[in-house]
Amino acid sequence: MKPLGRHLLLELFECDADALSSLHTVKTSMLEAANRARATIVNHVFHEFSSFGVSGVVVIAESHLAIHTWPEYRFAAVDVFSCGEVLQPQLAAEYLAERFTAGRISVVELGRGLLAREVAEESRPALAAAPPKVAGR
Amino acid sequence: MKPLGRHLLLELFECDADALSSLHTVKTSMLEAANRARATIVNHVFHEFSSFGVSGVVVIAESHLAIHTWPEYRFAAVDVFSCGEVLQPQLAAEYLAERFTAGRISVVELGRGLLAREVAEESRPALAAAPPKVAGR
Repeated sequence: MKPLGRHLLLELFECDADALSSLHTVKTSMLEAANRARATIVNHVFHEFSSFGVSGVVVIAESHLAIHTWPEYRFAAVDVFSCGEVLQPQLAAEYLAERFTAGRISVVELGRGLLAREVAEESRPALAAAPPKVAGR
Repeated sequence: MKPLGRHLLLELFECDADALSSLHTVKTSMLEAANRARATIVNHVFHEFSSFGVSGVVVIAESHLAIHTWPEYRFAAVDVFSCGEVLQPQLAAEYLAERFTAGRISVVELGRGLLAREVAEESRPALAAAPPKVAGR
């Protein structure tokens, strides 16, 4: 059972607050992270909040990268969602941790779309015989 | 210890394949989901792949919503990342499950940015006395 997508959830603590509060720095860092991960950039949207912080998303051919920063807590939450074998999400994570000089990081990788065999087969109604059932998620 | 953000990871299985393959349907559904969750929409980006599927992100004042669809597997992965108390991510999830007529769903909610007390206090260098240390994540 192989997931359709890989989702890396990266938490960057004890970062440089000035970098996290700069729309320009966050945007260019995320685009560079996408490039380092070997992503094909389709589009991007970044937004600076009037109080603190920047939110942004890079839509890539392989899914997306997202970031939300809390400069007042020196914290950033990053997501790298990918499909296919080409993308190297850990290269994006390593670059961003270094770029924001994170003192501490947490990384979790989740599989998304773990399809049980019977679900995949249901989408092929022409099958004459049902395959053996396997346990669902 | 309260997280800075809430991240709802929604997996929609056994969906209507035509809905998942339509850029228009996916986009309007995500914007409506954001509205139902009481989000303030800042911007959005959607992309239709030449093979199968749609990817899209709605940047909201409270963070973002993202979707990736695999019509050939009748599957969609949805993320609702929010901060603050106003947003109701479960309303977005319920709407999307109904809109795509999902036969089965999986939902996980994660806290993002769980700051240990010492980390939060480090960002206040003017403090005369350090607070009692608590365990980190």
